[in-house]
Amino acid sequence: MNIIDGGVTAAKGFEAAGVEAGIKYLNRKDMALIYSKKPCRTAGVFTSNVVKAAPVLWDKEVVSHSPYAQAVVINAGIANACTGRQGYECCNKTAQAAADCLQIPKDAVLVASTGVIGMQLPIDKLTEGVKKLSETKSDTLEAGQLAAEAIMTTDTISKQAAVTFEVGGKTVTMGGMCKGSGMIHPNMCTMLCFITSDVSISKELMQEALSENVVDTFNMISVDGDTSTNDTLVILANGMAENPEITTKNEDYYKFADALNYINTTLAKKMAGDGEGATALFETKVINAGTKEDARRLSKSVICSSLTKAAIFGHDANCGRIICALGYSGVDFDPEKIELYLENKDKSILVYKDGLMTDYDDDEVSNLLASEEVRALVDMKMGDASACAWGCDLTYDYVKINADYRS
Amino acid sequence: MNIIDGGVTAAKGFEAAGVEAGIKYLNRKDMALIYSKKPCRTAGVFTSNVVKAAPVLWDKEVVSHSPYAQAVVINAGIANACTGRQGYECCNKTAQAAADCLQIPKDAVLVASTGVIGMQLPIDKLTEGVKKLSETKSDTLEAGQLAAEAIMTTDTISKQAAVTFEVGGKTVTMGGMCKGSGMIHPNMCTMLCFITSDVSISKELMQEALSENVVDTFNMISVDGDTSTNDTLVILANGMAENPEITTKNEDYYKFADALNYINTTLAKKMAGDGEGATALFETKVINAGTKEDARRLSKSVICSSLTKAAIFGHDANCGRIICALGYSGVDFDPEKIELYLENKDKSILVYKDGLMTDYDDDEVSNLLASEEVRALVDMKMGDASACAWGCDLTYDYVKINADYRS
Repeated sequence: MNIIDGGVTAAKGFEAAGVEAGIKYLNRKDMALIYSKKPCRTAGVFTSNVVKAAPVLWDKEVVSHSPYAQAVVINAGIANACTGRQGYECCNKTAQAAADCLQIPKDAVLVASTGVIGMQLPIDKLTEGVKKLSETKSDTLEAGQLAAEAIMTTDTISKQAAVTFEVGGKTVTMGGMCKGSGMIHPNMCTMLCFITSDVSISKELMQEALSENVVDTFNMISVDGDTSTNDTLVILANGMAENPEITTKNEDYYKFADALNYINTTLAKKMAGDGEGATALFETKVINAGTKEDARRLSKSVICSSLTKAAIFGHDANCGRIICALGYSGVDFDPEKIELYLENKDKSILVYKDGLMTDYDDDEVSNLLASEEVRALVDMKMGDASACAWGCDLTYDYVKINADYRS
Repeated sequence: MNIIDGGVTAAKGFEAAGVEAGIKYLNRKDMALIYSKKPCRTAGVFTSNVVKAAPVLWDKEVVSHSPYAQAVVINAGIANACTGRQGYECCNKTAQAAADCLQIPKDAVLVASTGVIGMQLPIDKLTEGVKKLSETKSDTLEAGQLAAEAIMTTDTISKQAAVTFEVGGKTVTMGGMCKGSGMIHPNMCTMLCFITSDVSISKELMQEALSENVVDTFNMISVDGDTSTNDTLVILANGMAENPEITTKNEDYYKFADALNYINTTLAKKMAGDGEGATALFETKVINAGTKEDARRLSKSVICSSLTKAAIFGHDANCGRIICALGYSGVDFDPEKIELYLENKDKSILVYKDGLMTDYDDDEVSNLLASEEVRALVDMKMGDASACAWGCDLTYDYVKINADYRS
């Protein structure tokens, strides 16, 4: 597997665009398009929130029932959630506009929205936006970059990743983009993520690989514990790499799954590190847990702890808060047996052992916590399962951004 | 039932004190004592955190195995959690000091601590503190007030409540004090709560009434989602009201349970409203849910939502965040059927109905959200179960307090 530059336009046959449609934000791009020259097999995972935004309902239909998909239209600013029939009709009209402009069937168009809940989308601006998008789309890396920028809300950086890998003598490319900064606690974040690939693979295996992988990638990140109404992750594969179609769980399948894992992990970490107001990416790795599910619960409990997150923002070596968060995770363990290390790229400090804090140097730990990437490594000494979760620190800016998000 | 002034010294035979012991804080009271002239039956509920502070382990022993209790010694500043054997030995020495000063058995002494995790308590200062406490204890309301002040950490106000009720021709009194502001998400907050009563009741019934009641009172509040290592709620009853002993679930029992519910609800709401950095008490009442457990989960999900809490701080009528939090609570429902009202003492505004936001006036809702007590009322229209949960807004000061709590 080779890591390459680019995002959704990295794979063969994919085009993208990002334009200003004036939906809610002023003077910035707020609509994006992904388009494939050939029909794509699709797989998707969507929010587990009982309250599902209209585009989520639309996309679930397309992924389940349409023979193929060929385009995705995305807007930022308004989430089209809690918008009833009018909201769903807006998805329908947007898809129709894209179908007309791109000469593809309406049910081959996926739609996605992110932004404030409860407002109706201005359909005229959306359809105008779709026209601009289809006129400006291109297969350049720059076009992918414009699309990645257009879907941002409170994100401070655009998020892309791409790789190539070999299958049956053919080079296959996979690339993706995502957005997400607040209301991020994916159970399957508003997280939107779009992955494109020229791989040839059966729809069933692609869905299986995606559903399995999100459990350890996007579902292991959290900014604020709020699971959005709009979470959407879709992958489109157009087969243009001309590899022998992957139809069984052979070596080729696992190469595909590895590539997908790299893209998902990379994008998930970028989202966590760019959490609203965040100054640091905070990773918690739990090793030697009794079961995989225990390892997931323990690691996620730590990255979700408001007190731990505030301590990291303050570079405060208040390690007891991490032990406390492990303790209320719902997983049983012996506090006397576990070990806790705080780490950055250069250093690892043992801070808790035998039920006690070690006599670590407060200033040394404080300096470590000032890194851009901070890691808590927890050795449970109970078994051989491990898991990783990613979050960020809790800052004044998180409160600022969310105390008045709508204005 | 009559609401009266006072706290732990309201009931007959109870004395209290609060003194400066210089444990960690300077120039403030940081140790408290509750003492009963007669032996007390006790009941208690403690943190569900796997990592339990030493005083929690000590008190569980006393409540379960000692024939009676007669005193509680409490310190603020250091939590005596993650302190191993030395920490437990400190509980032992503190109890011994109290036993010596008060001429009671060591196993009749409960201890409780709140503050930073991972530091050892200065035992000499504690034993000196115990002496001062036993020399200055008194049965006045003022003494109860001093004790309630001494147990505060980041609390901004002391928290007490007291009532009287009639049982078998006798007036029974019940009073309590608590502390708690951060690390508050009781599953059984660092919340400490002490209730005293001169009621005569069997130990078993008292424990049953307490365990049943916390589910709908202290377990329904949250400041930050972090369940402490030190949560402790104990009740001491010395029988000095001379009512006929309550030994069955008769009318007298339910009078006792009602009084307990009032004290617990009042103290729990005071804790939520005084959450770290909070400017408002945020109550969510769910009515007409399918089951009581559904009602609890739905209401608690809303008061725990960081985004909703930040919106309340910003007086931002971003009602979609509440609908979103209901949606990820884990309870299934039809978003088209529910209704959401925002309320304060004077006003109730319907903001969501039929799957859509109503055309509420943003400024009117914003003004309402500026109240000291804000309520979300959710009508699920599914059954007849209801529940209430209490939290607070998420503010800059929460981050400030917790980014550098230890200094």
